[in-house]
Amino acid sequence: MAKKERGGVTFPEGFLAAGIHAGIKKKGALDLGLLVSEKDSLIVGMFTTNKMKAPPVQISQRRARRGVAMGIVVNSGNANACTGDQGMADAMLLTEKVGHYMGCSAQKILPASTGVIGRPLPMAPILESLPSLAAKLSPKGDTDFSKAIMTTDTYPKSAQKEVTIGGEVVRIGGAAKGVGMIHPNMATMLVFMTTDAVIEKEALRASLHQVVEDQFHTLSVDGDTSTNDSVYLMANQMAKNPLITKGSQLHREFTQALMEVASELRVLLLKDAEGATKFLHIVIQGARSKGDAKKIASTIARSLLVKTAFYGEDVNWGRIMAAIGNAGVPVRSEKVSVALGDVALVDHGIGLGDGQEEKAMEVLKKSDITVTVHLGMGQMTAEYWTTDLSYEYVRINAGYKGRT
Amino acid sequence: MAKKERGGVTFPEGFLAAGIHAGIKKKGALDLGLLVSEKDSLIVGMFTTNKMKAPPVQISQRRARRGVAMGIVVNSGNANACTGDQGMADAMLLTEKVGHYMGCSAQKILPASTGVIGRPLPMAPILESLPSLAAKLSPKGDTDFSKAIMTTDTYPKSAQKEVTIGGEVVRIGGAAKGVGMIHPNMATMLVFMTTDAVIEKEALRASLHQVVEDQFHTLSVDGDTSTNDSVYLMANQMAKNPLITKGSQLHREFTQALMEVASELRVLLLKDAEGATKFLHIVIQGARSKGDAKKIASTIARSLLVKTAFYGEDVNWGRIMAAIGNAGVPVRSEKVSVALGDVALVDHGIGLGDGQEEKAMEVLKKSDITVTVHLGMGQMTAEYWTTDLSYEYVRINAGYKGRT
Repeated sequence: MAKKERGGVTFPEGFLAAGIHAGIKKKGALDLGLLVSEKDSLIVGMFTTNKMKAPPVQISQRRARRGVAMGIVVNSGNANACTGDQGMADAMLLTEKVGHYMGCSAQKILPASTGVIGRPLPMAPILESLPSLAAKLSPKGDTDFSKAIMTTDTYPKSAQKEVTIGGEVVRIGGAAKGVGMIHPNMATMLVFMTTDAVIEKEALRASLHQVVEDQFHTLSVDGDTSTNDSVYLMANQMAKNPLITKGSQLHREFTQALMEVASELRVLLLKDAEGATKFLHIVIQGARSKGDAKKIASTIARSLLVKTAFYGEDVNWGRIMAAIGNAGVPVRSEKVSVALGDVALVDHGIGLGDGQEEKAMEVLKKSDITVTVHLGMGQMTAEYWTTDLSYEYVRINAGYKGRT
Repeated sequence: MAKKERGGVTFPEGFLAAGIHAGIKKKGALDLGLLVSEKDSLIVGMFTTNKMKAPPVQISQRRARRGVAMGIVVNSGNANACTGDQGMADAMLLTEKVGHYMGCSAQKILPASTGVIGRPLPMAPILESLPSLAAKLSPKGDTDFSKAIMTTDTYPKSAQKEVTIGGEVVRIGGAAKGVGMIHPNMATMLVFMTTDAVIEKEALRASLHQVVEDQFHTLSVDGDTSTNDSVYLMANQMAKNPLITKGSQLHREFTQALMEVASELRVLLLKDAEGATKFLHIVIQGARSKGDAKKIASTIARSLLVKTAFYGEDVNWGRIMAAIGNAGVPVRSEKVSVALGDVALVDHGIGLGDGQEEKAMEVLKKSDITVTVHLGMGQMTAEYWTTDLSYEYVRINAGYKGRT
């Protein structure tokens, strides 16, 4: 029953993981993780759109394009970003050494880093710790791995799911980190997903794109994106399912299962958002296009005035209206309706008065709040998830670097 | 010497102003202002790009297009936004009644409002107070007017300047409000400028556009724009200067003087930004285009991670680099240099180490900080002004509506 005890990134067949303290973070916290497949694995990735891509991101992006990997080595506490040629050389050397212990070329090891920008990686202690990291690789290493990728996260984040595809068991697992600097197009978010599915590369890539679009690109904590963030998906083909080809029924089943794992990770990321006291689900309906709906959802989710009003449990729906008007999308005030939870506040552009506002105050006391906006312009919809903005967010971010 | 005692919007010849408590705000605070010219005046305006334009903004925009006005009636405490047909009728009626007292048609009175969104204007007390408002009109009424437009502003904001144009004295004055929700393309900012210059309408309009672009569109407090914000410029032609025509030397002199008044107002707006403890002057150099430079300046100015790091006096230049990379503009990390004050922190993409970071900590203790970024991509530059993000910002904005 060893299988049953496994979870997260090592839930699928043939994946091993480990996490140790290598001396990057203070106080002995885990800061170096390794995730490997027992055999060569397909790998696909999506990487930050930030122009200041960190050296490990540049390397991983190139290596993911080749499509075959053995594993990923990841450190927290130091982003190895804005470190120039030295940062590139360090990341190269690290993957070479890891490849040495794994018996593969550096090309099959992808590097990832997260943490403070602009400091060189402390290579000596990291390289010294590689033998003990390799020695700890285990099918039960997922928890240590999840802990080793944490920065200001307050808990490790992992998820897993078993599905039957073509009559055979297929497993999917994942780990994630990221609590601030989270915004669509990656932000400081690292997500590692694994599967033992037998799947062709184009199908794997299509699944990843859809899942990232629907789950991780609908999450905004503070509107910032980072130099390092990446989503990886490894598929080592060790299950017994018939080959999943792109566009097939099996592919839809696989994508659906991957979506569920990603959705769990998204919820875990949101719930650990820095200083958050409220979790906002923004639902846009009646838009002319999906793009319009997303722009409006994103503008509401990013508005500091909206976020602080939710923190203060203030029924200030005018700020939601102002954010809608601020999205750069054609809208007509007299067609817009807004509700908090099931309490309608605005009907065709007009506030529904004190009675409804009092009811809405009850909704605002909850920690999970759905904001529904109907634009009255068409049929398209979008969803977004965000948080309020609290004193605690400011406290955490006012002194992050000094504390690391 | 009555002239010498005047300032702000009534500094130019022939302008009168007043401000009273009309019962919109609590506690007797001034909340209704009136600014009029003794004779018909040219008027030009620029209005919020927010799609949820408040009824008074829609009316003022139409009337400013006609180009001739007697005055502006403005209230604080209630934005008359998202109030639908009733809001439109209320603003129309208000200007009709004001026009009655001024002996002109409603078409020559422009309405403006600022405050909470979504509540109907309390028309009864406002209309009742109009006779006393009209009675208080005075060349010394600028201070009461400046106070009557305040919302969370902690002090009234006005500026004035006297210049000699074509051998004759010309006066320019202004009043402004706005402390949160300030962002390029207007935000919750109301600016009223006046001049007695003899100037043709196209020249007046061109001066206003240039001044708004260079001064008010380079100011960002929280990235939000509002439903109400507007910049007005009245020119009543009562000075004795030769006609200022568009593109002439006199026009350049006039624009320069207007720029100085606007610059003073911009500084006053920035210094009163909600909860700000640091004032950041973002200077972008070496960009390929003005547009690129502005996008990067704006992205740095809007980054919560940058703003909280300044609040915490944390030398986290990595967040500035990440913001630069997040602007959607082509940049190359290895060409970027960053300095705080006169302390270089990043040279061609590489951090300059602990020694420089320690020096930068001294810069961060100051309240006025210049952030200089050289992109190494070209010759273009841009400037931007913003603030840090403090606990106090969150406190003020978490409970605004409930307190009003």
